[in-house]
Amino acid sequence: MKQIAAEEFRTRIEAFQGNLRAAGLDAALVHGNEADFANVRYLTEYWPTFEAAAVFVPARGRPVLIIGPESLTYAQGRSVVPDILKMVEYRESAEPQYPGIPVASFRDVVRCAMPGRKLRRLGIVAWSITTLPVWTRLQSDLPGVKFVKADDTLIALRIVKSPAEIALMKKAFQVSEAAIDAILGEIRPGMTELQVIGIAQREIYKHGGEYEGHALYCFCGPATNNAISRPTHNRIHRHEMIQLNIGARVGGYSSSVGLPFSIGKLPERKQRLLAFGLDAHLKTMDLMRAGKPAAAVVQEYEAWVKAQGFGPYMLYGPCHGIGMMEVERPWMESTSTYDLQENMTFQVDTFFYDKDFGLRWENGVRVRQGGVERLSRKYMRLVQL
Amino acid sequence: MKQIAAEEFRTRIEAFQGNLRAAGLDAALVHGNEADFANVRYLTEYWPTFEAAAVFVPARGRPVLIIGPESLTYAQGRSVVPDILKMVEYRESAEPQYPGIPVASFRDVVRCAMPGRKLRRLGIVAWSITTLPVWTRLQSDLPGVKFVKADDTLIALRIVKSPAEIALMKKAFQVSEAAIDAILGEIRPGMTELQVIGIAQREIYKHGGEYEGHALYCFCGPATNNAISRPTHNRIHRHEMIQLNIGARVGGYSSSVGLPFSIGKLPERKQRLLAFGLDAHLKTMDLMRAGKPAAAVVQEYEAWVKAQGFGPYMLYGPCHGIGMMEVERPWMESTSTYDLQENMTFQVDTFFYDKDFGLRWENGVRVRQGGVERLSRKYMRLVQL
Repeated sequence: MKQIAAEEFRTRIEAFQGNLRAAGLDAALVHGNEADFANVRYLTEYWPTFEAAAVFVPARGRPVLIIGPESLTYAQGRSVVPDILKMVEYRESAEPQYPGIPVASFRDVVRCAMPGRKLRRLGIVAWSITTLPVWTRLQSDLPGVKFVKADDTLIALRIVKSPAEIALMKKAFQVSEAAIDAILGEIRPGMTELQVIGIAQREIYKHGGEYEGHALYCFCGPATNNAISRPTHNRIHRHEMIQLNIGARVGGYSSSVGLPFSIGKLPERKQRLLAFGLDAHLKTMDLMRAGKPAAAVVQEYEAWVKAQGFGPYMLYGPCHGIGMMEVERPWMESTSTYDLQENMTFQVDTFFYDKDFGLRWENGVRVRQGGVERLSRKYMRLVQL
Repeated sequence: MKQIAAEEFRTRIEAFQGNLRAAGLDAALVHGNEADFANVRYLTEYWPTFEAAAVFVPARGRPVLIIGPESLTYAQGRSVVPDILKMVEYRESAEPQYPGIPVASFRDVVRCAMPGRKLRRLGIVAWSITTLPVWTRLQSDLPGVKFVKADDTLIALRIVKSPAEIALMKKAFQVSEAAIDAILGEIRPGMTELQVIGIAQREIYKHGGEYEGHALYCFCGPATNNAISRPTHNRIHRHEMIQLNIGARVGGYSSSVGLPFSIGKLPERKQRLLAFGLDAHLKTMDLMRAGKPAAAVVQEYEAWVKAQGFGPYMLYGPCHGIGMMEVERPWMESTSTYDLQENMTFQVDTFFYDKDFGLRWENGVRVRQGGVERLSRKYMRLVQL
């Protein structure tokens, strides 16, 4: 299986340290947990399970991986960052006491990462998931240090993908397509939505996936009008919209393919919105190219949908960033202030809904000069079983 | 599919409100996310995906479910708590702006939950996963309010299980056993650890599971000496220890069955530790009964293991709580200060390791007067394929 080379991790850490210095920070503390793993894994390859983790990266010096009390053997086998310290603040949420296991403080971490250097300003990366035990311990261990939300110092690196990252993403999209192949071969009326998910899970792991890329969706009937939801024990019916959003993760990189389809014919009203959704999905891709303002893509997309008479059926869209996380920065919104750059990767996410159903086409693209390269292409077509 | 009845949710909320009053709290804010969902789901049945969530529960009045900006349709269909407010602090970690979506403040939440009442002391439940955006917003929205870690007010309810909870847990353990049945029928030398996980995933969803109960384990060879790790693309070999920890979740309740086994004979040294591990696993169950101090179980277990000459191979154990989370409070440690109570449920988690391998027997039990009831029993035996 392909993976990110040790050399690329070194390049990432050096570039991150450059960003920290440019931002006037002495170091950064980068948080991760088992579900929201990307920032820590981007720098170390370590992906926590049960416990949380962080990387302390000094602007000059050696990074330190911080783990919970139970993960040392695992972390030593997996992390490309060799200096590893245990802290109780990264333990499981069930809060075991671990009598007899020695743990470190943030003072120990600073001493290990930047011996003899002064810490005045510490950037917090992954602010939105950093927890209260970490926060209160920072304050008590490091009095006088100024803590600053500093997500941009790392995100600026993550939003433009390297050739190795693109290769893993392409593989992840292929695995997602293989899982949809299997579902379309095996799905039958009377199956539950969750049983369909089981088919996808088996295929993801069979074809080289390491995990789901996101909580998988299979919805049937009225449930398809949820933008966010979870599959249930409800059964698949003929002549109803069936929505699949199936995403594999390969080597730390996530994908998702969204396919709305039916077993037997749909009523004409639903079929029309389904077909329009696919047109809008492809239209979005036509609007994207390196150098274009992200907000312009959104504005042109929304104007086009309204001009076609489908404005009332549009919930949101048309794109969000994809990479290690299936949803990551940058989002593409009318308020976005950045321009598309070559090798940014987006999930084109086209959702339309009416009162009793919805549909969502999803495929990945890579921004190039003059247009996009499709990371998945097999299920950009109308499917009726 | 069985699930917790609406009446039981009402009972939970009333009991929780009683605990808040007894603790001198005016209300509690209970946090949850997609991975660490239990406290929010225990009170509302809502299980977030992509976004986070919280429940604001006043000591007197009506609870309010707080969700992210994208989850309203989903939450309205799932939450047994009807009052729902959106806050941007519960959005996805990719931090979209959501232009045009109106969101609430904590002042709005307090006004909705306890109109006309004064909030002076707010308990924070699930402190260990509560995030900085929530914390900073609490401080700015609610100046003068005292915030207090208050996990015990809710955990005190969750650690003793009702008949409906026990029924869901038994079903979850049955599904885990069915997944192991399928693995033992299909596993072959040359498969990857991750492909074995795919078999388990398919079976979990086929038999009525809603998700994995924890990140599933299949390790082969030296990797079995990890207490915490993740499966890889390494291949299954004959005459090596193979470790399965397979857990289904059913209706919000998690399980796990841990089975160490081999294809073909193990070297005698490994076989001996494997068999001793099973003896120790069963010994732990013999030591448990309602009324016994948890610390006494740990001390007697450890003394027994040492007396048998296996002290150097013991990493930890012997039990942790299980319920909605596969690992939840209470842990059973030498420092524990509680007594076992009837209808507490524990995962008996028996891990032994040597330098080049390890093994872990895991099964669930319910504490009764005079002993335990086994929640799983099929794989408490030596298996060699």
